[in-house]
Amino acid sequence: MQSMKKMDFHCKKGCFITFEGMEGCGKSTQIRQLAEKLRSLGHEVEVSRSPGGTPVAEKIRTLLKVRTPEDDLTPEAELLLFGACHAQMTRHLILPILEKGGILLSDRFFDSTTAYQGYARGLDLEMVLRINRFACGELEPDVTLVLDIDPELGIERSRKRAALEDDRFDSEKMKFHHDVRNAFLDLAKKNPHRFRVIDAAQAPEQVHNQIMEALHDTLANLR
Amino acid sequence: MQSMKKMDFHCKKGCFITFEGMEGCGKSTQIRQLAEKLRSLGHEVEVSRSPGGTPVAEKIRTLLKVRTPEDDLTPEAELLLFGACHAQMTRHLILPILEKGGILLSDRFFDSTTAYQGYARGLDLEMVLRINRFACGELEPDVTLVLDIDPELGIERSRKRAALEDDRFDSEKMKFHHDVRNAFLDLAKKNPHRFRVIDAAQAPEQVHNQIMEALHDTLANLR
Repeated sequence: MQSMKKMDFHCKKGCFITFEGMEGCGKSTQIRQLAEKLRSLGHEVEVSRSPGGTPVAEKIRTLLKVRTPEDDLTPEAELLLFGACHAQMTRHLILPILEKGGILLSDRFFDSTTAYQGYARGLDLEMVLRINRFACGELEPDVTLVLDIDPELGIERSRKRAALEDDRFDSEKMKFHHDVRNAFLDLAKKNPHRFRVIDAAQAPEQVHNQIMEALHDTLANLR
Repeated sequence: MQSMKKMDFHCKKGCFITFEGMEGCGKSTQIRQLAEKLRSLGHEVEVSRSPGGTPVAEKIRTLLKVRTPEDDLTPEAELLLFGACHAQMTRHLILPILEKGGILLSDRFFDSTTAYQGYARGLDLEMVLRINRFACGELEPDVTLVLDIDPELGIERSRKRAALEDDRFDSEKMKFHHDVRNAFLDLAKKNPHRFRVIDAAQAPEQVHNQIMEALHDTLANLR
């Protein structure tokens, strides 16, 4: 086993783009469309998700999603499991892709942990950030796209496909969704070097165009 | 979900006793013998192990023990998974037993994480201690018994039953085992209020007698 601190984070050549936002904001659609577009432009593109994306991280995802009623996850265990996922993703998925010069699009990453576990669930925010940093070393996304949407609209969209989704956050209360939205907006304000907020209430094609605009400089620097 | 910080750690009445030491030091034998003895004295005794002890923690144990070669655990993920185990154990196993006034004997707990991941594997010790504390809140063992043994002797004992054990630390190098031994001795020095070091090179019956002596005051306070 090699410790994260011994890794060279500066040999990366590719680009790590994360999508954040509440359920129903259109992340999956936009990721699919962006991946197609970038491939048509000749880029090597891979798509992943958090939690998940490596064999171990997918097993941890199952622990996070399929709850054990008699031994439901404590908030602390939940945060630590997300951290373990991000450590596996960083070393065994993200860095190898970036080192080869590829583009990785991820449906959520550690900013979701900060927003959901830190801001919305009220775990100690400093500890959440510390665990994110511990798990991922110096890695952070090159660009984080927040697909921002009014929670009422997001929930409505999300309910329309409820039968297909197993995301447990759907059943939680409205205030929680507003807290999550505000968390992403606050993170965007505090990290302007990598966050871009996109109005996700627009038609998908318009959202896609705004994403392409938001990525213009980043993509230009790749070639 | 209820956060650990909202729990009342002071309502506990029972006693949490942990066994630490390297493979081959005789923990399993001593735990079995102590459990029998304490039950014969009329105590409610339960036995557990770390990682493990609850349905979720046992699943995490499998992730820690049965490695995925193409996605081997990073040291960071390993530490975070141990933390998640300890969070589940604390809330769903240890505190409920202590609140009922029972005695819990655990084969390892967070001191193993400190010794193995912190001291011996060289992860940032402050971060290891911080994650232990985050996972377990204010809980710590009432008594931690270190079964101290020369690593050469421990390894020899351990190899004799290698076919029965799946512990991956057996194959690792001697220096590592010495580091672990020194880690437990250092932790004992730094936490004299709860650590007791027992010479585990003695015959099992002598070790058992020393453990009973070491627990004398603790058991007297239980009744």
